[in-house]
Amino acid sequence: MTLPRTTTALALRDGGFAKTPVPQVPETLSPHLELREVPLPDLTDGQVLIEVTLAPVNPSDLFFVQGGYGQPRTAGLAAGFEGVGRVVAGKGKTAEALVGQRVSFLGTRTGTWAAHAISDAALCIPLRKDLQDTDGAALIVNPLTAVALLETARDSGAKSFIVNAAGSQLGRLILGLARDEGLQPIALIRRPGDREALHGLGAAEVLVSGEGDFAEAAQKALKDHKPRVLLDAVGDQITADLFFAMPRGAVWVSYGKMGSEAPQLTQMGQFIFMDKRIEGFWLSTWLPAKSAARRAELIARVQNRFASGAWSTRIAATLPLPDAIEGILPAYRKSAGKVLLAP
Amino acid sequence: MTLPRTTTALALRDGGFAKTPVPQVPETLSPHLELREVPLPDLTDGQVLIEVTLAPVNPSDLFFVQGGYGQPRTAGLAAGFEGVGRVVAGKGKTAEALVGQRVSFLGTRTGTWAAHAISDAALCIPLRKDLQDTDGAALIVNPLTAVALLETARDSGAKSFIVNAAGSQLGRLILGLARDEGLQPIALIRRPGDREALHGLGAAEVLVSGEGDFAEAAQKALKDHKPRVLLDAVGDQITADLFFAMPRGAVWVSYGKMGSEAPQLTQMGQFIFMDKRIEGFWLSTWLPAKSAARRAELIARVQNRFASGAWSTRIAATLPLPDAIEGILPAYRKSAGKVLLAP
Repeated sequence: MTLPRTTTALALRDGGFAKTPVPQVPETLSPHLELREVPLPDLTDGQVLIEVTLAPVNPSDLFFVQGGYGQPRTAGLAAGFEGVGRVVAGKGKTAEALVGQRVSFLGTRTGTWAAHAISDAALCIPLRKDLQDTDGAALIVNPLTAVALLETARDSGAKSFIVNAAGSQLGRLILGLARDEGLQPIALIRRPGDREALHGLGAAEVLVSGEGDFAEAAQKALKDHKPRVLLDAVGDQITADLFFAMPRGAVWVSYGKMGSEAPQLTQMGQFIFMDKRIEGFWLSTWLPAKSAARRAELIARVQNRFASGAWSTRIAATLPLPDAIEGILPAYRKSAGKVLLAP
Repeated sequence: MTLPRTTTALALRDGGFAKTPVPQVPETLSPHLELREVPLPDLTDGQVLIEVTLAPVNPSDLFFVQGGYGQPRTAGLAAGFEGVGRVVAGKGKTAEALVGQRVSFLGTRTGTWAAHAISDAALCIPLRKDLQDTDGAALIVNPLTAVALLETARDSGAKSFIVNAAGSQLGRLILGLARDEGLQPIALIRRPGDREALHGLGAAEVLVSGEGDFAEAAQKALKDHKPRVLLDAVGDQITADLFFAMPRGAVWVSYGKMGSEAPQLTQMGQFIFMDKRIEGFWLSTWLPAKSAARRAELIARVQNRFASGAWSTRIAATLPLPDAIEGILPAYRKSAGKVLLAP
């Protein structure tokens, strides 16, 4: 079989990092991406070539294409962190064994927003037959982050924790997981629209920051549930104020930055006298630190949850590549569901 | 021997905590303290009664008398955390064994700014003969904090670390200790006056935040020394900016709050992508977590350093109690040395 030397992709226009801070969602994607043929590097040992079926647009992708994510861009390579597809070639024994399989995967160097992508065989997850492509497309980044963050929350010893941006895909995964583990999560959202849905998913309390009685409601929820972990995808002043209102020993775990404010530390003494701390979480450092057996266990758990319907991926839109540069952002802004690309 | 039932003391006027944030140094002490006879509680098992020789004014004392420290005040009891004196009575075997000895000590409930104080025998450090009273007066809070913070800095694995308010008594203790352990500390001060002195004490670099080339000098020092710990007694925006300029894995350790600003977290993404974190240090939680043997080892080390002259306590003023309420603050503001009270 002759392997393709190029592939149609949403290619990064710029390399490296942005010079100035970037917003969570850019005004437009056309300064950052272009649809074109890009070179496919030769496979090295342990790599597979994948025909991409679906690839999601995650918040981290939007930071990345703007140069605001934690790893540098390479101009002229495809964007996109994860996807689902079929392995069409492999180099080396482990990689060849995957040929013909449907896998969830993370792109290696060249991304998943393309007709073909390359992945390390070790970063491919062969999918169970009962799993839909839509679930397989977003099986790694959000679900494993949810599992990891929930471990942090559970390790705090408290029965409760706080999660903001709780209406997001990741927020919903966290709530469902928490309920099934017998925890009482406190969900923080900006507008009341998702209140009932989040209660249904497992939130013990839903706090709406845009409502007039937010401060009192938050105080009562903190008193009733005594959460010690704040899972934060926003990083605004509301987050900081909530952290300082939390009990002794509270940990602010930053894993995303959807807010544009620079929050103020108004109660520095709490680090000293109340043993509080601020730290970050990144799947890209957390996951490789786990053993292969532990990773396999986590992945089996994630597949089980999607297969059983305990988790599901809500779809905002599915776009072919030629419609993506114009179509991603309107669909992304309209809905908390996932925007998927179908190359 | 008949024990005194009351003692002359600088008594706290108010109990509990302040309702609003307090400054590091109050305008005046008279709203917070009054000179009067206060009751001396009966000794309970394991406690000693001490005739106080000298007691220092630490930054933590000034926060405490205003109600801004991590433990509540009791109105009508003496202020003052530590001191040196002679044990005149004890209850129970361990306590009685200390009678007649000169000790450094921490007050128990009733403070050290008094003619007599009460301490747990376990919190008394019998002093070597070659140690001066002025060193014994401030042997616990600052020296043990310095030793503990230096362990944190050393555990970071980097050869260098940053210490701000480096001209303070505690800053100087840290610098001396660091030099003797072969580390290259970066000292941060506001005005250039102490530059030469701090180099002499062991600072590899002295950064002066009030100077025009501060940003460039800081950048160069960070590049040359790659510190991973920032020991912070100030908590202002300069501290935050320095933290965000530090390399991957940097830890901001807050142990004091001399600045009045609420610093802004301008680079939240660094918690995620650069594995940075903010935490606090408090001797009152750190020390009790250590074994008795480890504490004895640390205390022997501290006494050795003062006895050998490796450390010394600089004195700003020594005040009798009747002059203290008027005299403490002018002396405190004038000098980085210690203000001592001689009851």
